[in-house]
Formats: sequence, C-alpha cells, structure tokens
Amino acid sequence: MAERSEEVKLLGMWASPFSRRIEIALTIKGVSYEFSEQDITNKSALLLQLNPVHKMIPVLVHHVKPISESLVILEYIDDTWQNNPILPQDPYEKAMARFWAKFIDEQICVAAMNVVGKTGEEKDAAVEATRDLLKFLEKELVGKDFFGGKNLGFVDIAATLIAFWLMRTEEIVGVKVVPVEIFPEIHRWVKNLLANDVIKKCIPPEDEHLRYIKDRMVKLNIKPA
Amino acid sequence: MAERSEEVKLLGMWASPFSRRIEIALTIKGVSYEFSEQDITNKSALLLQLNPVHKMIPVLVHHVKPISESLVILEYIDDTWQNNPILPQDPYEKAMARFWAKFIDEQICVAAMNVVGKTGEEKDAAVEATRDLLKFLEKELVGKDFFGGKNLGFVDIAATLIAFWLMRTEEIVGVKVVPVEIFPEIHRWVKNLLANDVIKKCIPPEDEHLRYIKDRMVKLNIKPA
Repeated sequence: MAERSEEVKLLGMWASPFSRRIEIALTIKGVSYEFSEQDITNKSALLLQLNPVHKMIPVLVHHVKPISESLVILEYIDDTWQNNPILPQDPYEKAMARFWAKFIDEQICVAAMNVVGKTGEEKDAAVEATRDLLKFLEKELVGKDFFGGKNLGFVDIAATLIAFWLMRTEEIVGVKVVPVEIFPEIHRWVKNLLANDVIKKCIPPEDEHLRYIKDRMVKLNIKPA
Repeated sequence: MAERSEEVKLLGMWASPFSRRIEIALTIKGVSYEFSEQDITNKSALLLQLNPVHKMIPVLVHHVKPISESLVILEYIDDTWQNNPILPQDPYEKAMARFWAKFIDEQICVAAMNVVGKTGEEKDAAVEATRDLLKFLEKELVGKDFFGGKNLGFVDIAATLIAFWLMRTEEIVGVKVVPVEIFPEIHRWVKNLLANDVIKKCIPPEDEHLRYIKDRMVKLNIKPA
C-alpha cells in the first residue's frame, strides 16, 4: 500500500467543498496522499497543464496520470481501492447514488449560489427554489443515518457541500435556508456527519472557514448580512 | 434473457438525443424493451410519477423501478447487463470516459444551445465557444475509430448528440459549427458511426428529424436560416 500511496497527489484548495470530497474519500480508503494547495485566484502552470479543459481544482494525480471533476474522481477512487466501498454494490442503488450526487451538483449547488449572489425578491425566490430541491433530500434521509444507510457513502460525500458550505454560509448571508423546522432529517444527518471521524478530520475548521467565506464575499462585492 | 427483458420499459421521445442514447445502449446489450413515446409538451401522469424530480425523459423502468438521467441510465445498463461492455474496464480509462461524457452534457450541449438560441454577435460568440470545446474532442479522436477505441462506447453514445443533433441542425441554423476543415477527425468519426449497425438502427430518420427540428424552432420563435 505504501508504495502505491506515495504516487497519489491531490491538487486542491483547503476551503473548497469539491477538494474536500476527495480528501474524505482517500481517508475512507486509507490512502495517504500528497496535498498541493492551489491558489485559485492565480492558477499554477501545473494546474493548467493537468486540467487544461476546466483549469480547476480538484485534480487527482495517480501513477502520474491526472483526473479532474470531483464526482469522476470519487468513482475512480472507488474503482481503484476496493476496500470500504463508497458506492453501493447493487446496480439500482448505485444508480440512485449517482442520480442524487448529480442532483446536488447540478441543481442544489446552482440554486444555492443564487441565494448568495442575488438580492431582494430574487434572493427570496432563490431560497424557495433551494428549499424545494432540498425537500427531495430530506425525504431520502428518513429512517437512515446517512444517505448511504448505516455508513457514509457517495451521496454523503457529495452532500457535505450542503452541510458545511451552504449551511455554514447561512449566518453570513443572513438567511436561514435550511431551517430545522422544515428540515429535521437534514439536521439529524449533519449531527451524524459531525460524529464521524473521517468527516471531523476532513472538513475545514469552522472559524477560519467562516472568515474565508466572509472575505471572499467582500472581494466578490457581495454584502454580508 | 426473455423473461428479464420483458420487464424493461423506456419512457422516451423519438427525436430526443438523450432518449436515443438509451436505445443505443439497450441495443448493444441485446436487451429487448418496451418503448413508451412521451409527449414532452403535455407530460403524462406516468412520467411525473416516475421522475418527480426532473419530470423529464428518458426514464428506464427495470423490475418496476425507475431510473432517470441518461448518463446514469447508461451506467446502470452497463452494470446490469455485462455483455458487450460500454464503459472501459480499466479504472483510469473509465474515469476518462465519464469525464468526456460529462463534458459533452455540461459544456458542449450548453454552448450549442446558445448557437441555436442567440442571434448576431452573441451567436458568433456561441459558435466560437462551441468550437473551442469541440477541439478537445477532435484531439481525443486522433488515431481511433471511436472514442472507445475499436468499438463504440460510453463517450460515443453520449456524443451522438454532436453527430446527429448539433451537426444535423447546422443547415437549419445556417451556421456550419463543425466544418470539416477544422474538425476532420470528428467528420471521420461520424462516418464510422454511420457504418455501425446499432447506430443505423437507433438514430432518428434524417428527413423526419429535420422537419421536427424546424417545426420546433418555429414554435420556440427561433427563426430558421
């Protein structure tokens, strides 16, 4: 394992949910890796060379070959290191996990960006739209510890975006997008995440993270509440 | 096989590239299926029940359980019927196939929609943007019959969107988005597709398809050239 692990490198950024997804997966698998912190405001020649299509982190390099797109990387990790599976084994359950992860990235992430980026009535509409989408996930969690059942899985890793980015940003943005009264299951799930050793190790420290998000909003000319 | 196949149903629409992807995959696998043509302008109660999240075709129903999102369905088909693999077996090659299929849906499809939907300078910019993206695929095809190598695979199935929708629409839109001078490899690949028996069986007949696209553009208030 040691020899193989030495060849694993992650180009990431500490505050990025997409980068953290990969750290969670590698930690679940027990794969040690070299982490290369990237400045996303001044992209390195290495990043541009390894991800010429999107020019974005995260990029996983294994055996000198680069892979980008966080969900694609998660699947690669699960295909390559088969201990502690991240995706379900059953084809239908696996399809459902892929469906919900895609839903989080293509629907929830986009709607939540509007909550941060818009103002007034547009912001209110974005909050409603995000909640309507989150209701599908709320339903998925009924009777389960994690989206993956008893164990943290593919959808949980994707959905850390909701637990530790969307929900942490709420107090800065000044809108409770995911109130516990409407989303008791999601709040219960966040507690389960916070009790998980891999998650505890792999999410950004809260104070530093909130400071970073505030700074970034100021730079992007978004007025915090 | 027969008993199992009888339980496969596809809710689709004859002119949709996403629906046709599923027909191609099922045909490669030799799985017979019941096709249920859907009116996308007047959605059926069955479609809304089976795909409450997106309310869109295609939906594959297998053993009474629904799956939506065409790329998720393709993976499900490959996981369920393991003859004639659609995805590569090697984890890195598999990751690359997933990367390019996602690229086609999230980048090329979006850029190409702007070519159809915009006018004037915006249209010109959309053509350039689409070409810049297509250049990555052009490079991928060098020295290969198909994206999958000798055989039609996952990326080829996803990229039929380019061969039989984007490229067929060119003459209606009045802009050659994929000229052979810039994209000789893509044109060679389209010829290989057209010589493939599964593709011949599974793509919409050209005349009827062009008439449908023209009608649809008129309905959407987009002026054909």
